[in-house]
Amino acid sequence: MTKIRIGIAGYGNVGRGVENAISQCEDMELVAIFSRREPKLIKPANIEDKVYTFDDACKHTNDIDVMMLCGGSATDLMEHIPYFAAMYNCVDSFDTHARIPEYFALADKTANKSKKITIISTGWDPGLFSLFRVLGMACLPNGCDYTFWGKGLSQGHSDAIRRIKGVKFAAQYTIPVDNAIDEVRKGNNPMLSARQKHIRECFVVTEPDEDMNLIEQKIKTMPFYFCDYDTLVHFISEEEYHAEHTKMPHGGFVFRTGKTGKENAHRLEFSLHLDSNPEFTANVMVAYARAAHRLYLQGEVGARTVFDIPIGMLVPYAKEELRKRVL
Amino acid sequence: MTKIRIGIAGYGNVGRGVENAISQCEDMELVAIFSRREPKLIKPANIEDKVYTFDDACKHTNDIDVMMLCGGSATDLMEHIPYFAAMYNCVDSFDTHARIPEYFALADKTANKSKKITIISTGWDPGLFSLFRVLGMACLPNGCDYTFWGKGLSQGHSDAIRRIKGVKFAAQYTIPVDNAIDEVRKGNNPMLSARQKHIRECFVVTEPDEDMNLIEQKIKTMPFYFCDYDTLVHFISEEEYHAEHTKMPHGGFVFRTGKTGKENAHRLEFSLHLDSNPEFTANVMVAYARAAHRLYLQGEVGARTVFDIPIGMLVPYAKEELRKRVL
Repeated sequence: MTKIRIGIAGYGNVGRGVENAISQCEDMELVAIFSRREPKLIKPANIEDKVYTFDDACKHTNDIDVMMLCGGSATDLMEHIPYFAAMYNCVDSFDTHARIPEYFALADKTANKSKKITIISTGWDPGLFSLFRVLGMACLPNGCDYTFWGKGLSQGHSDAIRRIKGVKFAAQYTIPVDNAIDEVRKGNNPMLSARQKHIRECFVVTEPDEDMNLIEQKIKTMPFYFCDYDTLVHFISEEEYHAEHTKMPHGGFVFRTGKTGKENAHRLEFSLHLDSNPEFTANVMVAYARAAHRLYLQGEVGARTVFDIPIGMLVPYAKEELRKRVL
Repeated sequence: MTKIRIGIAGYGNVGRGVENAISQCEDMELVAIFSRREPKLIKPANIEDKVYTFDDACKHTNDIDVMMLCGGSATDLMEHIPYFAAMYNCVDSFDTHARIPEYFALADKTANKSKKITIISTGWDPGLFSLFRVLGMACLPNGCDYTFWGKGLSQGHSDAIRRIKGVKFAAQYTIPVDNAIDEVRKGNNPMLSARQKHIRECFVVTEPDEDMNLIEQKIKTMPFYFCDYDTLVHFISEEEYHAEHTKMPHGGFVFRTGKTGKENAHRLEFSLHLDSNPEFTANVMVAYARAAHRLYLQGEVGARTVFDIPIGMLVPYAKEELRKRVL
């Protein structure tokens, strides 16, 4: 079997997750890692993996079938997509929901010009959760959907706390409110405010001699991030932080509830419970890399999302086998 | 907007469900119902709906975009698919898992010859549950999946009880075992026998003066249907049966559990809770009818399954809108 040759662009948590994900896939091989950092400073999990600078990406276009863009959504990917999609089939997990149309347009323009395929915003939200929202709308048009996140570590909210003067380390967990989930499960179609859906729990390590009351107030009143939520703040030791709060668990729920006929109620529920958000995100990206490669071989070009990809393309099995064994 | 024109072939529980589902979809209209029974004996939900015999199906090929095959899988659909797919784009919910390869081959041969599209085995299992099993395999290749059914009414098992001499009415509920689901949720990858996964609970109305002990023994020892399960049998009155056991609820769970990296565990869980199995099945079929029509307009021909259809094709929204609003 000819393996799908993968490149990784950006070697942070998700990049390391992709490296691990490929090791679980017999139909794929990792060819090279590209980093903005000095290649000598990168320590890949497999010591034999080759590391290059972004500038060298143009030298490997014949050796790589799909490039995994593992940079951050906040600033990296808007720069990386025009660079890499001009040379490679790409897959990313761009997750700034509000900027997706703009990002898609940029990816589509680049990939159409280079005659490559690029699948944007894979991962789990956007990604799997988006698929389920659409599946729910399709199967229960007379219905409502709800997405809850957590319990999980929010990188963005943790970063926001860390920016407060006097904070040394911080971990923020988003926790769905059980009572809200119960109301949704009952099919009551509740109207839920941000506060009614999620609690924010913060574990904070301060620098010595800081005013904890002041820091707690700054967190709880922070616009957009915390002021609209019930927020719990715990001050902990540096030891406890490193022992308990450096993992990156996450997950959540998507519900679709609706009715058919004479008041028959139905509920679809999809949930994820993830020990490692970046490793699972990477696994989803790798499944879509398989689809990107297949679409490219079929002669397709341009940008795609999870909505455009048949689910059967995500696994390394023949259609006959899937129909016989899994359908 | 030009509506998608739908025909219904077979007017039982699922056929009535399709009729209802179309009434919830602004982009569709019901054109005709076809039945093997005398059309005058059919009472459609909407009195104005036109009813014809199967023999008249050939007269409506210019008026119908997609024909919904709503006959039973046991005997009907193997005969209906070569008849209707020779004239129409078709969608069905063929659910005899063991015969799917044979059924697919028949549908594919017929549809390739007629230059139509036919999507087989939509519904929820096969259908949504199948999709989810593949998605789980794609995202957690190092993992296990589990499917549980219920709590729900099993038509096949209820029929099997009714065939016992002296039984007047019967309803059999398949109930997943809570303890088994708990073990799966914990990621313990349990080996589960049929008995460990599901309980079978039966509500039986007998003819007068029948030997209930004998009937109970006949149920509990019935090969294939009951002998491998813990089976509960309740004898009830005809009044109780009609009051409590004529609805058709169903549902179930699909789990995928697996690991990435250094022992990070993940769980995907998808569940359905349905007041009416046939009405929900019909809703899923109607979503796939939308996809069948779109594929046909793109010039595609032959048989397809849920694995081949992009999820975005199931809803009546533009791709731009989905990316902006749902991704």
